[in-house]
Amino acid sequence: MRVKATVAYDGTDFVGFQRQAVGRTVQGVFESVLEDVVGSSVRVLAAGRTDAGVHAEGQVIAFDTEWRHSLSDLQRALNACLPQDSVVRELTQAAVDFHPRYDALSRRYRYTVYQAPVRSPLVRRASLHCKTPLDIEAMKAATTVIIGEHDFAAFGRPTKGDVTVRRVIEAHWSATPPWLVFEIEANAFLFRMVRSIVGTLLQVGHGKISPERVLEILASRDRSQAGKTAPAHGLCLIRVSY
Amino acid sequence: MRVKATVAYDGTDFVGFQRQAVGRTVQGVFESVLEDVVGSSVRVLAAGRTDAGVHAEGQVIAFDTEWRHSLSDLQRALNACLPQDSVVRELTQAAVDFHPRYDALSRRYRYTVYQAPVRSPLVRRASLHCKTPLDIEAMKAATTVIIGEHDFAAFGRPTKGDVTVRRVIEAHWSATPPWLVFEIEANAFLFRMVRSIVGTLLQVGHGKISPERVLEILASRDRSQAGKTAPAHGLCLIRVSY
Repeated sequence: MRVKATVAYDGTDFVGFQRQAVGRTVQGVFESVLEDVVGSSVRVLAAGRTDAGVHAEGQVIAFDTEWRHSLSDLQRALNACLPQDSVVRELTQAAVDFHPRYDALSRRYRYTVYQAPVRSPLVRRASLHCKTPLDIEAMKAATTVIIGEHDFAAFGRPTKGDVTVRRVIEAHWSATPPWLVFEIEANAFLFRMVRSIVGTLLQVGHGKISPERVLEILASRDRSQAGKTAPAHGLCLIRVSY
Repeated sequence: MRVKATVAYDGTDFVGFQRQAVGRTVQGVFESVLEDVVGSSVRVLAAGRTDAGVHAEGQVIAFDTEWRHSLSDLQRALNACLPQDSVVRELTQAAVDFHPRYDALSRRYRYTVYQAPVRSPLVRRASLHCKTPLDIEAMKAATTVIIGEHDFAAFGRPTKGDVTVRRVIEAHWSATPPWLVFEIEANAFLFRMVRSIVGTLLQVGHGKISPERVLEILASRDRSQAGKTAPAHGLCLIRVSY
């Protein structure tokens, strides 16, 4: 049986999603707990390989198992064994050939900015602190540039052999001081594309570049033109749609 | 010069506010950073000695210093040296005899409950997870019992020789699913009083005791009658008024 699981994690103490030779990974933690619970070696597939420090509220993973009890029993058992920074939010049976990455129609990310003169210890793990006020209207204007189907080569690199065209379905900023929240949904993203876009839009917000410049950067298809990649800890994968 | 500082901290990685023989304390961290920055030994006074795991958005401390530059320079220097889980939100000069504890007129705390079937890794450090639905109306009814001046001996113990009468100025629950937030302000609190009250109100919410029973518990002035003390990590000292 193939199982689809929606999972959440606090990315702070992971070196990333994907299993690596060294370091604590989300994949490693889930595979190890699955193995303990179901009693056999399990390989986990994922919708997106989030970077070190990036959080997830709605990452989707899939795995095969011979589990004979109910899926709610499996979820309870997994959540009892998983560390406090990881959890299974939902488990459902999927088609035997379901692949969380290749079958995904779109991914939605949120980037959270805490805009205040002094940093806040209680929100530091899941938001970027900006000391100086940001020009939210300029950032909103610049954001419209990236909506639609474009070659995003300036904002990220593809995996080997892949094209750099992506379709941004939705992208917007909402401001509820001291919070500035960016949400973006696309059919798929290039490597570090959301953080590269946010880094560029923050430059607009700081008055370092104009909203019009973002159009030039996009058109350049040159990664060296974009702003500094925004830090990982402000980013969260919130939903994958199928 | 006596300086009054409003400070915030994430209580997760502290063994409490008050300096102890062993363990990382809020007082220890602030005194050590102050010593580094001002160059002489500094003793910190505080409005309230929060327990291990309890957070603060508006703890107030005071200390004496010969600092010759501006207070904004001092704040910047302290925040540059303080670890990421602690910060100085505001610094002002105070009267030479200002005492953050004895001069306080009231303290305000918030207790945050995350009510959802599955726990959430991203909010786990500053909220209590409750799996089962709570009867918020019963909790609200029970809360009215504790408002006003009462002998709170059933809900906490005083410091040596102190009386157990306290005046609760305000106490209420607000529900914005999945959040249940309790705020309480009193002239002062007994040791673990907020967590003891919350623990008892949660028993009401779980239908284990009636709202009327809370009146009996209060009247009993017997600590063994109250509900289990609620965990520290849901609690935050949000304001001290002078």
